[in-house]
Amino acid sequence: MTVDFEASGGLRSSGLLTDLYELTMMQGYQHFGKDEPVVFDVFFRTQPFKGGYSVFAGLEDVLALLSNLGFTDGDIAWLSELGIFRDEFLKGLEGFKFQGDVYSMPEGSMVFPGEPIMRIHAPLSQAQLMETIVLNTVNFQSLVATKAARIFNASRQGSVLEMGMRRAQGPDGALSASRASYIGGASGTSNTYAGKLFGIPVRGTMAHSWVMTFDTEYEAFERYAELYPDGCIFLVDTYDTLRSGIENAIAVGATLADGGHNFGIRLDSGDLYYLSMKCRKRLDEAGFPDAKIAVSNELDERVIHQLVSDGAPIDLWGVGTHMVTGGDQASFPGVYKLSARTVRGTLEPVMKVSDTPEKASNPGIKQVYRFYDEGDEPLADLICLEDHPPDRGEPIEFYHPSSDRQHFTMQNYGRFEPLLSKVMENGTICTRLPSLPEIREHAVAELRHLDTTYKRIINPHIYKVSLASSLKQLKTEMQERVR
Amino acid sequence: MTVDFEASGGLRSSGLLTDLYELTMMQGYQHFGKDEPVVFDVFFRTQPFKGGYSVFAGLEDVLALLSNLGFTDGDIAWLSELGIFRDEFLKGLEGFKFQGDVYSMPEGSMVFPGEPIMRIHAPLSQAQLMETIVLNTVNFQSLVATKAARIFNASRQGSVLEMGMRRAQGPDGALSASRASYIGGASGTSNTYAGKLFGIPVRGTMAHSWVMTFDTEYEAFERYAELYPDGCIFLVDTYDTLRSGIENAIAVGATLADGGHNFGIRLDSGDLYYLSMKCRKRLDEAGFPDAKIAVSNELDERVIHQLVSDGAPIDLWGVGTHMVTGGDQASFPGVYKLSARTVRGTLEPVMKVSDTPEKASNPGIKQVYRFYDEGDEPLADLICLEDHPPDRGEPIEFYHPSSDRQHFTMQNYGRFEPLLSKVMENGTICTRLPSLPEIREHAVAELRHLDTTYKRIINPHIYKVSLASSLKQLKTEMQERVR
Repeated sequence: MTVDFEASGGLRSSGLLTDLYELTMMQGYQHFGKDEPVVFDVFFRTQPFKGGYSVFAGLEDVLALLSNLGFTDGDIAWLSELGIFRDEFLKGLEGFKFQGDVYSMPEGSMVFPGEPIMRIHAPLSQAQLMETIVLNTVNFQSLVATKAARIFNASRQGSVLEMGMRRAQGPDGALSASRASYIGGASGTSNTYAGKLFGIPVRGTMAHSWVMTFDTEYEAFERYAELYPDGCIFLVDTYDTLRSGIENAIAVGATLADGGHNFGIRLDSGDLYYLSMKCRKRLDEAGFPDAKIAVSNELDERVIHQLVSDGAPIDLWGVGTHMVTGGDQASFPGVYKLSARTVRGTLEPVMKVSDTPEKASNPGIKQVYRFYDEGDEPLADLICLEDHPPDRGEPIEFYHPSSDRQHFTMQNYGRFEPLLSKVMENGTICTRLPSLPEIREHAVAELRHLDTTYKRIINPHIYKVSLASSLKQLKTEMQERVR
Repeated sequence: MTVDFEASGGLRSSGLLTDLYELTMMQGYQHFGKDEPVVFDVFFRTQPFKGGYSVFAGLEDVLALLSNLGFTDGDIAWLSELGIFRDEFLKGLEGFKFQGDVYSMPEGSMVFPGEPIMRIHAPLSQAQLMETIVLNTVNFQSLVATKAARIFNASRQGSVLEMGMRRAQGPDGALSASRASYIGGASGTSNTYAGKLFGIPVRGTMAHSWVMTFDTEYEAFERYAELYPDGCIFLVDTYDTLRSGIENAIAVGATLADGGHNFGIRLDSGDLYYLSMKCRKRLDEAGFPDAKIAVSNELDERVIHQLVSDGAPIDLWGVGTHMVTGGDQASFPGVYKLSARTVRGTLEPVMKVSDTPEKASNPGIKQVYRFYDEGDEPLADLICLEDHPPDRGEPIEFYHPSSDRQHFTMQNYGRFEPLLSKVMENGTICTRLPSLPEIREHAVAELRHLDTTYKRIINPHIYKVSLASSLKQLKTEMQERVR
């Protein structure tokens, strides 16, 4: 919900938008003199939807939150009443301002498990405080952008309309979802406020209640066409799609066509393949090969993929619930983990060792390089220690992030590029943030360049994210030191 | 997100918080002189989570939205730019104020498929405009309250803490989820802002990063206990739960106990049954039978039910993702359907006929009566036409809502009570709204009184919602008239 913080008058910029334990730990770090610079990474361990890629979204909102979060007198008074915060700490909250640096991949990037998507460099207490709100924002928007990209891709990059507000998770859940759906490839939204707030094209047809408030379906269509002759879409399934709806649409559509207007129909129930075939045939017979067919009704990427591969003559996809909530997977598994902390004045790598090798984190301050072929197709990503970038023009070793025995040498590549860059310095945004259409364009281009095998809905190929040799060595050493 | 509308400065009270088609239909109704009184019902067709009950939540927010929604000059100017709204219509939005009446079940009520949970009586264009925001609010909060009730029930009405903010659907998604979780039975939240906004008790422990920023786990625990001696909960799984975590917790806990303080531990990974048994044993051996064991890590009602029925010695359940998003079902299937409209000056019943009998709606202005045994246990619900209430003391016929052959006679009941009452008149709240703890109390009492068979996690008994004879007759007649 890229937020007009002024309009939201404080609600969305409260430092209380965090888990209580972040505040208790914050006080602890300050109290025990541990409030020194640290680095946290934002990353995730497995792809949502058993997919082959994710789309990173939410950066603009995270940066807005980080630059605005603070504590009002009311917030501080309320915290004081809890009886667990000392005056000294509460006093310090009064002028609170985030003073960290943030490195991030561009919003709309394709992202893969294990690689840092963002890095937060800040005094420990500040970095800790921000954990919850950073994850909240990135996780939700990335979930929806990823789902939207899957749906958009299943439609063969067709016209997808997000229309999920009534099933979205609250008014702002709906706004964030409209934004993220657009990034992932939707071309419009039914959410009017999202249109005003973000400039996303708004679209809509008619509801069954419209048809039911007129004495006949024909009259309902006729009146609608009178008022909205441009690109009129008739909802044809209120009574009987084939015996009544499509025929009334054709009758009223004919008068629209006489006036030089296109029209279309929407199917919202029944077998969408069967009905779209029948309706296409009737529209063509009646002389309206340009009349569009829109469909809706619990669509997701699997349903759309099936319809598209079966050749259903569908032009527009209205997607609600599944797009704005993620459907059967309602959360993106992003985490926020300490990767470096100050020891005797220097930032030293830190890692979480785990009995499960896949769960061990990657230590140190890291950069991610994406390797491309001679064109723009990404081949694999390499995580490096920031001060050990790969040598240009050389064959480069790619080590498996958790298995010691798997590695390969990357020899035939066109170029590689760093993905993380500084977007915030000392709490202030230090780069030009792209517009929402630019973010969408980036996401759609990244999706297009990705090899098809990674985009399969079921059992996609796994895109490789590897460790560079210096990082692999550091990780191995640190793991052995703990053992 | 029970909202302080003043604090949110307009964002949440914008009439643009709706699907575009509601606005285009609204203009159409006004333009064609169809803006007469209608009644819309809010109901749902199937229980979420394949469960036996749902908890209705979101009413307070719906009423706040209805009484506050309007259009700013900026909203109207933006609509005007779309080029589809006429000046006459836009002019009318300037002083827009919802003027309808709302009838509703109390927030926190157990609700079942097919029965009206709310009724909106308003001029057609106003009722249509409100569809999206009413559904958005009720659907999301009812989803989360229902999931929370299932989780609370699986814990045998134990101590459940909602801690899902980082996986919730945006900052406000998180706030609404905290509120709804509390209604459904959670006893606290980690979301600090929800504590301030709603007065929900806030709770928290420590993160792995706290433990990792100290040189030893022992030091991390010791420092934490120094600052927060009251009800201190040590996170014991950062390094090795049984070889290090529990022993350090006992060592530091012993000094806390000397000072008269209780303590506890939290397990956040591994086999929670095995580890809780082992830790309970060590705590008991060490002389701390009162030390609590809290657990977290992707908990839902199934996992909790399994642990509880196996006798795992767990005192506190920290639930995140699944509670605040609904988990594998991320939306509540509430719909908003026209049930009466004005024909020649009188409100006449309307119904949506469907080829699928279960999808046909129930026509007319309806009241729901809940029948109880001699105590407070609900037996079945009866949907009646409002002007045909059941006769007190008589045996009463209960007709199946869609099958013509199934009906039964209710003879042995203690009492019945109407569930819908007027909560808003002419756009103004006309009843005392209960406080959040009162809503929670109502939900928890309803859950307690419901027979166990309806509360099973898998394959619950289906609670009967039937039609009274007059409504059954009307519905049959209307269906036959269409055929």
